Amino acid sequence: TFSRGIQTVTLIPGDGIGPEISTAVMKIFEAAKAPIQWEERNVTAIKGPGGRWMIPPEAKESMDKNKIGLKGPLKTPIAAGHPSMNLLLRKTFDLYANVRPCVSIEGYKTPYTDVDLVTIRENTEGEYSGIEHLIVDGVVQSIKLITEDASRRIAEYAFEYARNNQRASVTAVHKANIMRMSDGLFLRKCREVAENFKDVKFTEMYLDTVCLNMVQDPSQFDVLVMPNLYGDILSDLCAGLIGGLGVTPSGNIGANGVAIFESVHGTAPDIAGKDLANPTALLLSAVMMLRHMGLHGHAKKIETACFDTIREKKVLTKDLGGNSKCSEFTGDICRRVQDME
Amino acid sequence: TFSRGIQTVTLIPGDGIGPEISTAVMKIFEAAKAPIQWEERNVTAIKGPGGRWMIPPEAKESMDKNKIGLKGPLKTPIAAGHPSMNLLLRKTFDLYANVRPCVSIEGYKTPYTDVDLVTIRENTEGEYSGIEHLIVDGVVQSIKLITEDASRRIAEYAFEYARNNQRASVTAVHKANIMRMSDGLFLRKCREVAENFKDVKFTEMYLDTVCLNMVQDPSQFDVLVMPNLYGDILSDLCAGLIGGLGVTPSGNIGANGVAIFESVHGTAPDIAGKDLANPTALLLSAVMMLRHMGLHGHAKKIETACFDTIREKKVLTKDLGGNSKCSEFTGDICRRVQDME
Ligand SMILES: CC(C)[C@H](C(=O)O)[C@@H](O)C(=O)O
Ligand SMILES: CC(C)[C@H](C(=O)O)[C@@H](O)C(=O)O
Repeated sequence: TFSRGIQTVTLIPGDGIGPEISTAVMKIFEAAKAPIQWEERNVTAIKGPGGRWMIPPEAKESMDKNKIGLKGPLKTPIAAGHPSMNLLLRKTFDLYANVRPCVSIEGYKTPYTDVDLVTIRENTEGEYSGIEHLIVDGVVQSIKLITEDASRRIAEYAFEYARNNQRASVTAVHKANIMRMSDGLFLRKCREVAENFKDVKFTEMYLDTVCLNMVQDPSQFDVLVMPNLYGDILSDLCAGLIGGLGVTPSGNIGANGVAIFESVHGTAPDIAGKDLANPTALLLSAVMMLRHMGLHGHAKKIETACFDTIREKKVLTKDLGGNSKCSEFTGDICRRVQDME
Repeated sequence: TFSRGIQTVTLIPGDGIGPEISTAVMKIFEAAKAPIQWEERNVTAIKGPGGRWMIPPEAKESMDKNKIGLKGPLKTPIAAGHPSMNLLLRKTFDLYANVRPCVSIEGYKTPYTDVDLVTIRENTEGEYSGIEHLIVDGVVQSIKLITEDASRRIAEYAFEYARNNQRASVTAVHKANIMRMSDGLFLRKCREVAENFKDVKFTEMYLDTVCLNMVQDPSQFDVLVMPNLYGDILSDLCAGLIGGLGVTPSGNIGANGVAIFESVHGTAPDIAGKDLANPTALLLSAVMMLRHMGLHGHAKKIETACFDTIREKKVLTKDLGGNSKCSEFTGDICRRVQDME
């Protein structure tokens, strides 16, 4: 890959273990000579005009300028009425595709060995519309909103992704046997888009059937595309198959190159500040980010070093089955990256 | 258990392999001298007054009289507008609780060994309300309906079930962080009901977290209670953990003792009529039925015989890893049941 000069990325370290794992990623990027410069921003929600929650202007401006962000875990809001910052970020920047590759990690044992799939989740509507009403006392409705535009957009993203990443098939996941109109619309758009991607195989499957088949033989799946809530569920299920949220990367992709990559695990307040956290999920999210930016050489180098460290099992954090500190694990990856020069 | 004379049960053999596996169950019940007499009924939907789909009056009357039904698989309707008979049956008899115990079967290998949990699914509302609208061209909404009454009813069922079956805990599964009003209402009712069951531990968990933890360590779960769609998903996922729909029983429970027990696998048209089908799921559903009717002795006998046959691995149908015919598998269970006399 040719150098395009140094690019600036907005870094949102987040809460709890967020700052530690962000530091780990920065160190590894430095060791790998990744041409990235960080612009750190805080995203505690503030109340804007009319009482609407919004992300702080400094964070918004930074993202608007840089287009690319890397984000650690954020505390779940406790106060009623306070929004989930994760959702607010997706909304603010119209990050319509949530992409989570799940690949078995050599040396990290789970009941499954050949997982190599990607969940692509519609990130803006569906069951996450936020529209709910009390009809009469004791009767509540939540509205699931499915639009043609958002369905087409996510289907197109999934097929482009499959094509660009040498993946053979896309499976649309739905419950159109029950939600005939909404999931029916989603499915119809997937079918239409599939017509334009004859090089990628297209299949459709009920969500319940996917879950059943997934735990019996995940190796049969490739790229999966689905509405918001189904993606929330399936992406966590799939993360579980390969070792959990501590090792799975995630990217939220919008139009015109805008994207935020994030680790989706919690803030782990119990171990925060103790140099015990595992930076793998954030690091692998940062690797996804490098690929998104076209920096494939740096991505490969860092990813290889990380997987080598895990496979060798000598320097692992506690959650990965070792006794090492976050800084030692980070140091081991840095050394490998430097050895590759 | 004392004899209460012979009771009549409505038998809906169903389509495809349905008749064969129903015959298998009847033979085993006869061998076990279960005091059951069968009333066979067909449930192909018919159009009633006003064009509404309904189940045939002979089937309806039989169920109204007997209160208890056993049902094989039904063809998924192909015609647009034709309802799912499974859903129509649940609706017609207000079978509000869908109960699926998932227990690891000794000798039938899967990646998991200590599964012993029960999913309890609200069966009448939620995402299955069937209310959908086209708002404007390209924009569709589906309404998820959650009521206080149905939520309280299913929560009460779950806690009663836990108490009556010596189970230690009930976990409410929800996404009240997203659907704050609807799942919020469901969760609130669970919390309220929990107050009346201090002998049963109560916990709450996000659906995505349950899925993740489930594939990592299912042995941590006990009784799970949840809205309709989440139950559809989780019950299939859990079935996958122990070997799939061919070995998992299911019961749909209504008020006043009304209940239909069913195998939830498909009709398997490719092997129908060839004496190759596996009757285990229907048989274990029939065992659940016997327990529901208070016939614990007969239930235990048949269940033990079935699990012994599977564990010994000598006479198994093809899907269970053997070469035997449905009738041979059935014969082996019959012999064991008779040997227990
Ligand atoms: C934090 C929460 C709002 C979020 C979601 O439900 O989407 C999370 O589970 C995720 O998958 O990113
Ligand atoms: C057949 C189908 C309508 C049904 C459902 O979605 O509930 C099935 O998946 C089930 O779980 O019984």
